Amino acid sequence: MIETRTLSLAEIEDLSFRALVAAGTSEENARPLAVATAATEADGVASHGLAYIPIYCEHVQCGKVDGLAQPVLAQPRPGVVTVDAATGFAHSAIEAGFDALIPAARAQGIAALAIRNSYNCGVLGYHTYRLAQAGLVGLGFTNAPASIAPSGGAKPVVGTNPFSIAAPGTDGQPALLIDQSASTIAKSEVMKHAREGRPIPVGWALDEEGNPTTDPNVGLKGSMAPSGGYKGVGIALLTEVLAAALTGATLGIHASPFSGTVGGPPKTGQFFIAIDANATANDAFSTGIVDLVEAIRSQEGAHLPGDGRRAKRLAAKSDGVAVNVATLNKIEALLT
Amino acid sequence: MIETRTLSLAEIEDLSFRALVAAGTSEENARPLAVATAATEADGVASHGLAYIPIYCEHVQCGKVDGLAQPVLAQPRPGVVTVDAATGFAHSAIEAGFDALIPAARAQGIAALAIRNSYNCGVLGYHTYRLAQAGLVGLGFTNAPASIAPSGGAKPVVGTNPFSIAAPGTDGQPALLIDQSASTIAKSEVMKHAREGRPIPVGWALDEEGNPTTDPNVGLKGSMAPSGGYKGVGIALLTEVLAAALTGATLGIHASPFSGTVGGPPKTGQFFIAIDANATANDAFSTGIVDLVEAIRSQEGAHLPGDGRRAKRLAAKSDGVAVNVATLNKIEALLT
Repeated sequence: MIETRTLSLAEIEDLSFRALVAAGTSEENARPLAVATAATEADGVASHGLAYIPIYCEHVQCGKVDGLAQPVLAQPRPGVVTVDAATGFAHSAIEAGFDALIPAARAQGIAALAIRNSYNCGVLGYHTYRLAQAGLVGLGFTNAPASIAPSGGAKPVVGTNPFSIAAPGTDGQPALLIDQSASTIAKSEVMKHAREGRPIPVGWALDEEGNPTTDPNVGLKGSMAPSGGYKGVGIALLTEVLAAALTGATLGIHASPFSGTVGGPPKTGQFFIAIDANATANDAFSTGIVDLVEAIRSQEGAHLPGDGRRAKRLAAKSDGVAVNVATLNKIEALLT
Repeated sequence: MIETRTLSLAEIEDLSFRALVAAGTSEENARPLAVATAATEADGVASHGLAYIPIYCEHVQCGKVDGLAQPVLAQPRPGVVTVDAATGFAHSAIEAGFDALIPAARAQGIAALAIRNSYNCGVLGYHTYRLAQAGLVGLGFTNAPASIAPSGGAKPVVGTNPFSIAAPGTDGQPALLIDQSASTIAKSEVMKHAREGRPIPVGWALDEEGNPTTDPNVGLKGSMAPSGGYKGVGIALLTEVLAAALTGATLGIHASPFSGTVGGPPKTGQFFIAIDANATANDAFSTGIVDLVEAIRSQEGAHLPGDGRRAKRLAAKSDGVAVNVATLNKIEALLT
């Protein structure tokens, strides 16, 4: 039984903010990360919420991320915004980038945001969600240190590289939000099994020769299994081309680890595309999305990607979130 | 042993062109489809090459596609081109659209092409290939009649919906070309097994209750299995949102079949995004792509998506393509 305490979203944001600032993060950089942490807890993705705050603080202190970084923004073409995150947090780079991306997408019909010299952006769907809240179709891509091997090979060349799409709805929430990685399972699950000394199911990870393994430690030295075989590799490559090559960020094969304190800043990238459906769809977008969503919701037992997070998000607004007390104690220790 | 005859690419294009025109297609509409047919044979994708010409001709004659259609182009915003294909061939709509999309992408840094009232676009990677030849990163999405069920459901709501990405290379060929559908296997493979009375492997298709089946006829009445389970559904939904909802095209749940002669025009859609890497990547794009490709090619046994097609394409230029004589006879019969 895990002991929990219920916090409001404002309390979660405030606690995160104070811990990040205490660790040496500027207020400008701490705020968007604290807001995202509260939203991530609201969505029920506890693995990427408050549990990450002690890691972020440690990374500011060891120099894996520069808490005082000032993102540098440029708009080299009417439809393209670039941000050099200057080895700071991805969240402040994205915050600055979206302020320019959203009006550009409305004016041009479509616009892109390319971020380099960045860091782990947390839950990717949080960011595309914000584009949908602005009334735009949001696509997001983020790269990571290599952990998936190419088809026919055994040495990792791409990360578990998620993509996300969020489509605006008519009720203030996205009509649909997809956020999925290219691997069968999240790498953090394999790490958890390794810590707990438990075997992993066949199909999660491969050894250094590319053979299936049930030993999580062997899998962590080998590679993560791509979802659906070569098609998962295709998704990871799509994301690597957009989030790394197309942003000028560090490829997964060269990036330092997101976890631990060694190797300096990972300098990975994020790529976002925002599209104004009013420009592309001749006013038919909402009807189409509602029709598609209804065809899924009307089937007994069927569900849309993002439905789980959506239900938790709506409940958390009024009820707050039950947070692991051990995590809270760890964060409060950082404040004293 | 299948009897073949070797034709040059010019001969394949000419034969396709004459058959399409003889069936009642305008020269303007026949040319881009004939060029694509030759390129598809060059890539070794015989299933979508000359073998499709008799079907296209039949579809012109039964009214599933309007051979005389005139695509209507608009550019409602600087970065968005829309084309109403007017129930004509997708290829002429894409041809017209690319003529506006390519300069828009260079000027804006990113641009989109939304096509509605369209038809089956053949091999999607052929079109993104052309964007890469123009020096742009090309993304493509196309929807199809519903054949994949949502997670937890059993009734199809999305098609096998491929996406494609092509990245420009330094040697005149794309550095990388991905073109993959959302299902474990192409639906045409299940149809082929049904015609030949052979069972299909478990994992290709599901029955009307969503259970695995080895009977291809049961699978065709049920649904196609998504690649990687719910993640394959996510890819199909990504594509449906972009190629159908965002273009104002007909959703897969409402589209008439691509095969056979009943149901009238499918009126499906295509969505393309073209990105100028010079705008987004601060001159680092080529270095990144070369580095990524090399990390894959240098591994023994590893291969890149598109490598097979690339090798065949280069050989076909000088050697021509060995074409099934039965297919040639069928097409020549249409010309007399």
